[in-house]
Amino acid sequence: MTSTEPISFAEAFDLINPHLYTVEERIRAQAKIFDPAVEGYVSYVCEAGGKRLRPALALLSAGATGKITASHVDLAVILELIHIATLVHDDIMDGAELRRDQPTANAKWGNAITVLLGDCLFAHALRLSTNFSNSDICRRIADAAAEVCSGEIIQTQRRFDLKLSTADYYRIIEMKTAALFSAACELGAFISEASPQVISGLKTFGMKLGVAYQIYDDILDLAGSEEQTGKTLGTDLRKGKFTLPVLLMLQSGKDVNTLRELLLKEDQVDGELLVAMLGSAGALQSAKSIAFRLIEESLEQLAPIQNNKYAGGLRAIAEQLRTLLDRI
Amino acid sequence: MTSTEPISFAEAFDLINPHLYTVEERIRAQAKIFDPAVEGYVSYVCEAGGKRLRPALALLSAGATGKITASHVDLAVILELIHIATLVHDDIMDGAELRRDQPTANAKWGNAITVLLGDCLFAHALRLSTNFSNSDICRRIADAAAEVCSGEIIQTQRRFDLKLSTADYYRIIEMKTAALFSAACELGAFISEASPQVISGLKTFGMKLGVAYQIYDDILDLAGSEEQTGKTLGTDLRKGKFTLPVLLMLQSGKDVNTLRELLLKEDQVDGELLVAMLGSAGALQSAKSIAFRLIEESLEQLAPIQNNKYAGGLRAIAEQLRTLLDRI
Repeated sequence: MTSTEPISFAEAFDLINPHLYTVEERIRAQAKIFDPAVEGYVSYVCEAGGKRLRPALALLSAGATGKITASHVDLAVILELIHIATLVHDDIMDGAELRRDQPTANAKWGNAITVLLGDCLFAHALRLSTNFSNSDICRRIADAAAEVCSGEIIQTQRRFDLKLSTADYYRIIEMKTAALFSAACELGAFISEASPQVISGLKTFGMKLGVAYQIYDDILDLAGSEEQTGKTLGTDLRKGKFTLPVLLMLQSGKDVNTLRELLLKEDQVDGELLVAMLGSAGALQSAKSIAFRLIEESLEQLAPIQNNKYAGGLRAIAEQLRTLLDRI
Repeated sequence: MTSTEPISFAEAFDLINPHLYTVEERIRAQAKIFDPAVEGYVSYVCEAGGKRLRPALALLSAGATGKITASHVDLAVILELIHIATLVHDDIMDGAELRRDQPTANAKWGNAITVLLGDCLFAHALRLSTNFSNSDICRRIADAAAEVCSGEIIQTQRRFDLKLSTADYYRIIEMKTAALFSAACELGAFISEASPQVISGLKTFGMKLGVAYQIYDDILDLAGSEEQTGKTLGTDLRKGKFTLPVLLMLQSGKDVNTLRELLLKEDQVDGELLVAMLGSAGALQSAKSIAFRLIEESLEQLAPIQNNKYAGGLRAIAEQLRTLLDRI
């Protein structure tokens, strides 16, 4: 095991920058594979940009366990396309008009085209995955995609459900968010032909990081600054998505009747009041502590992995999440 | 080449009945593979029944080219699941409340759950397809699924578009309907390890039959009896789906200004008047003739195929379509 200096989040991305650039080019090129009548829609949603976190995790896991190959780039492209497909459908469900300051597909073309557009992207991503000569990779990707969709269904089904437990919440976010993070890390290592122990460690790293990331994102919706989120706070509350801080406060029993009443007001939900309640009850802080612990646990998974600069990049991503959580 | 007596449509289904029964059982069993919270939704849409035409084509093509195996049954299950997924999303787009006399998924649970439910089925079907040891099969299935979605997008995009040509129409229905028919026949033979010539013949058979079937279905929407269709006539017209008879009449130039005006009235479209116009202009008859010709061409594709009872079953399906067209 060689020891390396810790690197920053920006340095982690720099490390894989040429590969990320290829991923970006490849994502753009996918639109051309569709019928010319469909190309414009695909290209619009693919070029909308994004953090490309899943590709970064796949590429860093690849580098942490071997040489980054064309297959790793394929993996990164496929996982991002699945992610984009789910965002396209999410925006329909949320009736969102903007994503990253651009009109959403549903705002531009209506729900009908957008449902189909998501389907197209989804089918295409899975079509690309059939190019892997090892069908285990293809199966694992399809599994993760099915998990994401199932997680989203359960989340939608349990809106405004005061009986949602923290266990239900973890299960939902493991499926809807962490499944792709986990597949990125696991398959990055699998393609590098890492040992089963290393593959399994990276899979767990991705799972824990994904759950922590979703908890962070959910806290941000409640208590972030508009500058951090670029969107109105409390959107989840108004949509009946009860996230970890809310569930922890419900569980604690403190002011539970007032809380229940406020939560069920749907479009009339008073976000500011609720956030103040969650803050003074310590529920935001408790949720943060849980995310911090998950970040710690994710980092522990990296211990048996060869300590090269790419492994340092994975660490840097987890550390960056810790920093972001600290700032809320 | 052995010669056999022609068989009826019912006999064709009888021939593969035990296998179709297994397909049905397997489709039902899929629901159990999902998270318990999702199982109920999946099982509802999977048990809604259907003609199971795609499974029948896959199984008959299998029998026509060899022995029907477990892999053929897998193929039939996967294609039907993809078909069900597209129906689930179709019903959202059409705002349909009933399908086969049962409330649609969107009528029962709303659009949000239903978008995700379609995604789940879709992802699951493609996940099942990764079990084929030959990744060509998996790729071909994903290709067909992507075709179906692209076809649906173009159809939606071109609603109320008076510039839609018959060539555009054929391309749309080749993608949205015939792609799965064609994949069923082609892959049925491919799994049987038939010769490239036979595989290609069955692929073309499925393509032509699929196009003829969609033309039939489109004529039925204009001119069928309520008894035949179980739904209100002229739905396509009101939704701006201009199908073959309409396009042929627009192309002929007869009463074209009146026709254009009537077609663009959206929800106020006078279906009865339009159907009367299409009838007296001979456009319904012309569309039927085109479908008859496609059926003939599809049957020609079967000539080089070993003439066993299963090949007779494929013929019977094409003949049944001819009979149904005759009855309109």
